[in-house]
Amino acid sequence: MPITTPLTELLGIRHPILLAPMDTIAGSRLTRAVSEAGGFGILGGGYGDRARLQAEAAELKGFAPFGIGFITWSLAKQPELLDIALDARPQAVMLSFGDPAPFAPRIRASGARLICQVQSEDMAKQALDAGAEILIAQGTEAGGHGASRTTVDIVPAIVDLAAGHVPVVAAGGIADGRGLAAMMMLGASGVLVGTRFYASVEANGAAEAKERIRIADPNDTVRGVVPDWSRKLFWPAPFTARTLINGHIKSWTGREVELLQRADDVAGEYAAAKMAGDFEIAAVFAGEAVGLIHDIPPAAEIVERIASEAEQLLAGRRNSIASLA
Amino acid sequence: MPITTPLTELLGIRHPILLAPMDTIAGSRLTRAVSEAGGFGILGGGYGDRARLQAEAAELKGFAPFGIGFITWSLAKQPELLDIALDARPQAVMLSFGDPAPFAPRIRASGARLICQVQSEDMAKQALDAGAEILIAQGTEAGGHGASRTTVDIVPAIVDLAAGHVPVVAAGGIADGRGLAAMMMLGASGVLVGTRFYASVEANGAAEAKERIRIADPNDTVRGVVPDWSRKLFWPAPFTARTLINGHIKSWTGREVELLQRADDVAGEYAAAKMAGDFEIAAVFAGEAVGLIHDIPPAAEIVERIASEAEQLLAGRRNSIASLA
Repeated sequence: MPITTPLTELLGIRHPILLAPMDTIAGSRLTRAVSEAGGFGILGGGYGDRARLQAEAAELKGFAPFGIGFITWSLAKQPELLDIALDARPQAVMLSFGDPAPFAPRIRASGARLICQVQSEDMAKQALDAGAEILIAQGTEAGGHGASRTTVDIVPAIVDLAAGHVPVVAAGGIADGRGLAAMMMLGASGVLVGTRFYASVEANGAAEAKERIRIADPNDTVRGVVPDWSRKLFWPAPFTARTLINGHIKSWTGREVELLQRADDVAGEYAAAKMAGDFEIAAVFAGEAVGLIHDIPPAAEIVERIASEAEQLLAGRRNSIASLA
Repeated sequence: MPITTPLTELLGIRHPILLAPMDTIAGSRLTRAVSEAGGFGILGGGYGDRARLQAEAAELKGFAPFGIGFITWSLAKQPELLDIALDARPQAVMLSFGDPAPFAPRIRASGARLICQVQSEDMAKQALDAGAEILIAQGTEAGGHGASRTTVDIVPAIVDLAAGHVPVVAAGGIADGRGLAAMMMLGASGVLVGTRFYASVEANGAAEAKERIRIADPNDTVRGVVPDWSRKLFWPAPFTARTLINGHIKSWTGREVELLQRADDVAGEYAAAKMAGDFEIAAVFAGEAVGLIHDIPPAAEIVERIASEAEQLLAGRRNSIASLA
């Protein structure tokens, strides 16, 4: 029996599984695949490449349901990108990492649901004040940008704060049905999943990046500033990025001040490596859930697996009791 | 309906809730209270104060069920303490932080169950090789000593490793029935709870320490070496201690090398503060679950609350779906 929650009802979806709007990785193809499988695809708005956003949004215009996600502080520099997004008529716009208030009225007026990702109670209050209709509580386990509180800590904290107002979605470290079922026990109405969908057929990532995720174990990721500073990207506090550990990360971690001093040189080297697909220098943004990922299937299969495993667990048909009986 | 798991069956207990053997905080009174409420109390063996262990163990002799917990690397310096423990005929001995192999045969031969707490897959393999009958998978959210992997990451990892062999208990950040239910969805057979029991009537802690836990929020804890180095206690890697943040921690965090150089002076000041109950210097060992703790009830009430909330959640009678409907 499908899991029905306030999230599935609000978004009109079959499974409470949202695609994290990973930068360029969550393109229109992956967005569409997740939604067609009964989840909710969210296109990555990235760092403001207007041409890319226009092309990807055009691919989704007329399709439903889907969302578009932005890095809020980056969107603030090019607020006109929101018009491009809204023109594609998404059912939701997701804002992460910054004050959503300047954008909330236009999003709400368009009829799209406002989804805000938060990493603390203060950010959750700010988002609710701005009119957020869905909160994502993101733990430090997440791949890419995030903060320091863990999923087991931040999810119940945000659930308690949002109780009865808006649904809360858990993010960070979730890659299977156990994670979805566990987060529902903590009071979440669904999950936002990134890394697991990165390692899917439809993700825009390089084949080698996907393969690195597939073979990584959970000790192989780290959160820090090296991947950002190596691109001369300076995120506001408290946000850092979790990536797979590679030669570049190993070499610069602990030497961040020197990295800053040599930022121009490093950025040149990093950009060249990214272009060349050299993932010993360019970072693969991925979360602690890499330990649970061992294949690169179509996104629909991932949605189906997570949903059916969670359904069985929540129905009590296959839990720790049975598995040891 | 009570939650039955391989853990409750193995230990013959009503609720899958174990008391963490917190140093001197988990004394015989708290151990007894948790067991009498249907959980499983585990006496803290501490750092090897022989007289205290003898007195506390004597209080429990003839009582059932209960366990005694040791810091493995500390026990290795005074292995004769295990005889004192076994003489009290505990139903289980819990070993944390070190190789359990040297002690496992005597524990198993006594008829006590061997419980091993682990923070990585390698430690879990070592414990299983030594004959562990229950594994505790401890996340970094835990109060007191622990390592860096989060609960949402380490629990499924250890469950997958131990699948079908021994029950896995989740530790770190668990203070309510939501946490127990969530951990069962991740495949755990129960939870080990520390900080929530620290803030109970029967815990040996000072009233002010309990009050500090009651009013703390989750941002008020930090994991590091300052509390140990301030006592000239040098734990083996990768273990650090999570405590409430106080003036002493704030002042020395980031200046650990200087702390080491001035260790004699600081240790004197710290010991005096501990004696005087000055918790702006002496540390209160507590986990991220402080955010979920708002009272100081009898331990039996804590067991009852966690168990009944989890039972309701697992039965589907009160979950996020209903709470927002």
